[in-house]
Amino acid sequence: MSFPDRLFAAISTKGTPAMVGLDPRFDRLPEPFRTEAMAGPKRAADALIEYHRSLLDVIAPHVAIVKPQSAFFEQLGDHGFRALGDAVQSAKDRGLLVLMDAKRGDIGSTSEAYASTFLENGWDNAFPASDALTINPYLGEDACEPFLLAADRAKAGLFVLVKTSNPGAGCFQDHGEPPLADVVAEKVADWGANRLGDNGWSSVGAVVGATRPEELAHFRKLMPKATILLPGFGFQGGSAEGLASAFNERGEGAVVNASRSILFAFERPDLQHLSTWEERTEVAVLEMKEALKPISGSPA
Amino acid sequence: MSFPDRLFAAISTKGTPAMVGLDPRFDRLPEPFRTEAMAGPKRAADALIEYHRSLLDVIAPHVAIVKPQSAFFEQLGDHGFRALGDAVQSAKDRGLLVLMDAKRGDIGSTSEAYASTFLENGWDNAFPASDALTINPYLGEDACEPFLLAADRAKAGLFVLVKTSNPGAGCFQDHGEPPLADVVAEKVADWGANRLGDNGWSSVGAVVGATRPEELAHFRKLMPKATILLPGFGFQGGSAEGLASAFNERGEGAVVNASRSILFAFERPDLQHLSTWEERTEVAVLEMKEALKPISGSPA
Repeated sequence: MSFPDRLFAAISTKGTPAMVGLDPRFDRLPEPFRTEAMAGPKRAADALIEYHRSLLDVIAPHVAIVKPQSAFFEQLGDHGFRALGDAVQSAKDRGLLVLMDAKRGDIGSTSEAYASTFLENGWDNAFPASDALTINPYLGEDACEPFLLAADRAKAGLFVLVKTSNPGAGCFQDHGEPPLADVVAEKVADWGANRLGDNGWSSVGAVVGATRPEELAHFRKLMPKATILLPGFGFQGGSAEGLASAFNERGEGAVVNASRSILFAFERPDLQHLSTWEERTEVAVLEMKEALKPISGSPA
Repeated sequence: MSFPDRLFAAISTKGTPAMVGLDPRFDRLPEPFRTEAMAGPKRAADALIEYHRSLLDVIAPHVAIVKPQSAFFEQLGDHGFRALGDAVQSAKDRGLLVLMDAKRGDIGSTSEAYASTFLENGWDNAFPASDALTINPYLGEDACEPFLLAADRAKAGLFVLVKTSNPGAGCFQDHGEPPLADVVAEKVADWGANRLGDNGWSSVGAVVGATRPEELAHFRKLMPKATILLPGFGFQGGSAEGLASAFNERGEGAVVNASRSILFAFERPDLQHLSTWEERTEVAVLEMKEALKPISGSPA
């Protein structure tokens, strides 16, 4: 099954386009993981492995897909890559789809190497394949092609950075007339035109910040079949309002990511009556699902 | 000492702006490493470690700086990150400077995490710091800032992708009027203006393909103080001709990278009279230095 078919079937089953980002900040993990994370890279990685398995137990019944952020894991060097691989495999073991947020981008055989790592199990099955990967388009169409070809082979998805969620995204992405982000969006539509799932959605998706609902309808028009990843919900200020234009009437077309609003929920003063970090986290996931109800089609 | 001061002092000592890229393609390693690389990820990583130590022994007397390409190592998952860290440390142990070619780019605390990994020894010294890092500017100025601040703290360098060496680089980099790459170049000059070494060169450098000498004088004018990384020499078609505009009369201002023309030299039919891969590799390094003589100022 193609990535968009797998994705929207799972989203329909779970009844929400919510995605949880796995962005472990070592100094803001629930205990005992935080203390362990201070005890050297190896113990930190072991703690991350245990933490993510428990976290995935909490969220797997509620959402379709998770998004590990490679950067935080890489801080632990080889130990971190071990923890990242375990998080990917643990998510898959729990029936979750995995979008690897590594924002890679290079040329030729180097792009191919990155694609191999994250979409095709690496060299000799060294690293578990994700279902999809974020990529950076700056180096151009020929530089993206190895990612596209690897995604074809692996029946995986790609999410190309188009308009990111940070306040200064326009610095280069708005350059020119039409703005660069529009040109990238047109390429995304082009690359995806012959890469459609049975449900009509393309395996070549795009990243458009959930922080910029005013531009979403515009990008949807430029990329009518692209699955849109909307990061920045919650902590970064994105709300459900205005995101509807990314979705069709069946609640298909986009996924909405939240990381910190879920991962840091265990610290929330209003949830301290719940005794475990898992219960508090679950509340935050359910709140996010509730907030997204108006834009996510008919509930499952 | 600032990165540009360290870099050009080392280049003056070695008498060449040549840089060797560490881009290990597992199926094109000299024996016995190639055979070992086929024996599972752990043995492949062990082989890479031994290979790079020997390779660095060969090249350390001749060049100032090496550029590991993270993508190839990552294919081995956590084992690959272990081999990458060892290559960085082994290069430093041999007095070489290290430019990590990881082309990272993200926003806020995620950029900070990448910068921590590659420039500040990661979390709890999990990964050896490089002297410099390549970054992708697509996400904008605010997204690059955490890299700039980390580089300031670490006295490290950054090389921002401006105009890359691939044939299709212009796809997005030439978009708009002025072209996007010019706008990025102006930002690079701006970011580097207050980040000068004692020698007058900035710690904020730029990547401009050695494959496009016709544009080099233009980018040098836009970024008069930026250290320019010129990748694509040799295998990708770049030659010394036309690169002179990146250098001043003392041979300062740029570094020229070759990867495959050095790493695959052991396969060259004309060098088979030399019995070891190390000797053939050394010949290729010396040939590159010779080819760069006309543009590298007075020899040491």
